[in-house]
Amino acid sequence: MPVVVQKYGGSSLATAEKIRVVAGKICARRSSGVDLVVVVSAMGDTTDDLIALARLASGPSHVPDPREMDTLLSTGELVTATLMAIAIRSMGHDVVSLSGPQAGVRTDSRHGSARIADIDTTRLKRELGSGKIVIVAGFQGLAETEDVTTLGRGGSDTTAVAIAAGLKASRCEIFTDVDGIYTTDPRLVPDARKLREIGYEEMLELASLGAKMNPRSIELGAVYDVEILVASTFEDKPGTLIHGESRMMEVRKAVTGVAVTRNVGKIMVRGVEDRPGVAAEIFEPLAEAGISVDVIVQNAGADGKADISFTVAEGDLDRALAITERCQSCSAGGVTGGRGFSKVSIVGTGMTNSPGYAARMFRALSAAGVNIDMITTSEIRITCIIDAPLVEKAARSLHRAFGLHEASAG
Amino acid sequence: MPVVVQKYGGSSLATAEKIRVVAGKICARRSSGVDLVVVVSAMGDTTDDLIALARLASGPSHVPDPREMDTLLSTGELVTATLMAIAIRSMGHDVVSLSGPQAGVRTDSRHGSARIADIDTTRLKRELGSGKIVIVAGFQGLAETEDVTTLGRGGSDTTAVAIAAGLKASRCEIFTDVDGIYTTDPRLVPDARKLREIGYEEMLELASLGAKMNPRSIELGAVYDVEILVASTFEDKPGTLIHGESRMMEVRKAVTGVAVTRNVGKIMVRGVEDRPGVAAEIFEPLAEAGISVDVIVQNAGADGKADISFTVAEGDLDRALAITERCQSCSAGGVTGGRGFSKVSIVGTGMTNSPGYAARMFRALSAAGVNIDMITTSEIRITCIIDAPLVEKAARSLHRAFGLHEASAG
Repeated sequence: MPVVVQKYGGSSLATAEKIRVVAGKICARRSSGVDLVVVVSAMGDTTDDLIALARLASGPSHVPDPREMDTLLSTGELVTATLMAIAIRSMGHDVVSLSGPQAGVRTDSRHGSARIADIDTTRLKRELGSGKIVIVAGFQGLAETEDVTTLGRGGSDTTAVAIAAGLKASRCEIFTDVDGIYTTDPRLVPDARKLREIGYEEMLELASLGAKMNPRSIELGAVYDVEILVASTFEDKPGTLIHGESRMMEVRKAVTGVAVTRNVGKIMVRGVEDRPGVAAEIFEPLAEAGISVDVIVQNAGADGKADISFTVAEGDLDRALAITERCQSCSAGGVTGGRGFSKVSIVGTGMTNSPGYAARMFRALSAAGVNIDMITTSEIRITCIIDAPLVEKAARSLHRAFGLHEASAG
Repeated sequence: MPVVVQKYGGSSLATAEKIRVVAGKICARRSSGVDLVVVVSAMGDTTDDLIALARLASGPSHVPDPREMDTLLSTGELVTATLMAIAIRSMGHDVVSLSGPQAGVRTDSRHGSARIADIDTTRLKRELGSGKIVIVAGFQGLAETEDVTTLGRGGSDTTAVAIAAGLKASRCEIFTDVDGIYTTDPRLVPDARKLREIGYEEMLELASLGAKMNPRSIELGAVYDVEILVASTFEDKPGTLIHGESRMMEVRKAVTGVAVTRNVGKIMVRGVEDRPGVAAEIFEPLAEAGISVDVIVQNAGADGKADISFTVAEGDLDRALAITERCQSCSAGGVTGGRGFSKVSIVGTGMTNSPGYAARMFRALSAAGVNIDMITTSEIRITCIIDAPLVEKAARSLHRAFGLHEASAG
């Protein structure tokens, strides 16, 4: 029988009643004649509640130990997995729940953001072989130290794709509270259209487009060629299939979607020496402080000096600014920071090696009266940093300019 | 350094604030120069909440699978163990939390009421050797199937005593919401006196005296000669030391305490054939239905017939009656049942081989106007079943009659 791996997110499992509804869907799918492995997240806000408890236990002036946090947070998925197994058994199907470690998820020992090293499929195959539906607690694994690790936020997606790869499953299905991947955020652009399919690379760039997919799970899917369906748990609508470009059947558009990120803070460092090691001097202390730097732009100027600008989440701006000001190489020209920016990107593999998309993007923004503050590009993406209040206007104009409101063209 | 094993119960750990108070006590004890292993229960009502969730998930007509229940319930202790480790670390001590399986607790695979088969102390010793306080999630272990098991209600006491035995710890300290073992229930008898010490066997008989100690943990203590201190978590009072008779220093009384059990139901089977196998025919179906039978009395009558009476918890009476009525050997003389009984016992190793204690007990009850319905005896215990409304009167008269209100005599 073909093996299908499913994953249900926490909002789909927030109450015992919802768990029973999902259990019914799982039983129906099993009866259709597939072997099923189902990865589950923690119920609703469980993870946030556990984090809050840990803060209370540690007191305000201490950060809870990452190893202890991992065991603590892993209990959330264990609870959902066992409740799901209990619900499924009450519906007459044979079932077993496995923790991440029991399911053979082996990771490195980076507590809080562990990477999957291997899936030992021995027990998964044994349980499937005995005719059971297998429920797996997502988000967690076992390090070589025999300690429980977690994969970071959204890690259950990664669990599901990794298990699908390990079992050579025919498909990985991610069920969530959105019904697929859209050409842009439907709350910003009423024209936004759901994509029937999308390639791995584009999906990686669009990861912020509302499906809240974990980029690592997409990467893993690309490497092991696992087809991933993103669909709604409770609405019976077709979702979006993420897969390799070669199987793409939809008439291709050059641009697949418009991605928007809000609450962007910007830091500019002027007149730094243009020599090797300067960038590391600026960005290493930020990384050590756990601050994610997003867009980085450097212009080499005259007289051996350069200007470096970069963006961080607005919430990190003050800390990032303080750290950057302490950097010796930055002291010469001065460090300035600002908030109130947004990021808007166009994404599409069709842009590769095709000229003119950047120009078309800038023209569309200009026509909409949107000034561009920073620009970066990758193979399949062009990103502009703009003033936050203009982001809706920018997204709408780009969505139209690249014909994303139409079913096919572009 | 000497190793001390401590155990804190769920009511002592019901909130993050209480966990921090207990963490402070643990740190102080560690600083006094002992190696510490601390076994913790689930916070407050966590276990009941999880059971309620499982009932919702399984629906009203199904019983949740015991294997799934074990993993589900084990999360309660994992949460407390990690929060305790987080709290202790914030106070500057090196600490690690271990799940039952990580702490080497190996059990049989009777889910829901597993028995400890062995403690593999390898990791416990390694963590202690590196100078850490070790926090262990109580109540749970690992079966040979690699599945998580639980030890039944009160199982954290058993975890603590078993680990103390495995580590040859100098002492096991059980901290709870009572401050020790009393001569009888202080809510019934204002004279009740806290015992400074008590022997294992007497403690086993007195297990219902208010300390809510798990009898299995006492047995384990007796077998491995582990001294057990029962004391209050938050009140700084001396507790009660449970240990071998030989070390008993207190001037001995023949009777150590008066035990009381309420809500007793009684079933009488009259005129059953007096042949081998009849008792099994009656009690095996009750055991299969999970009904605990307490006191059993059989009188062989004339004409090869016997009367058998036994008690069950009042809540089980109707089910037990229905099962007993179906028993073929019981049909001849008729089965009757009644509720509204209590059980009162006197316990003490000093009674062994000494005549007259039973007579003194019956006289005291008679003087108090208490009629006796059933009587059973063991080496160190005499038990009477009496009418429930008279239990307070009975307990007070026995407490006085055996001089338990005085510090020493009897």
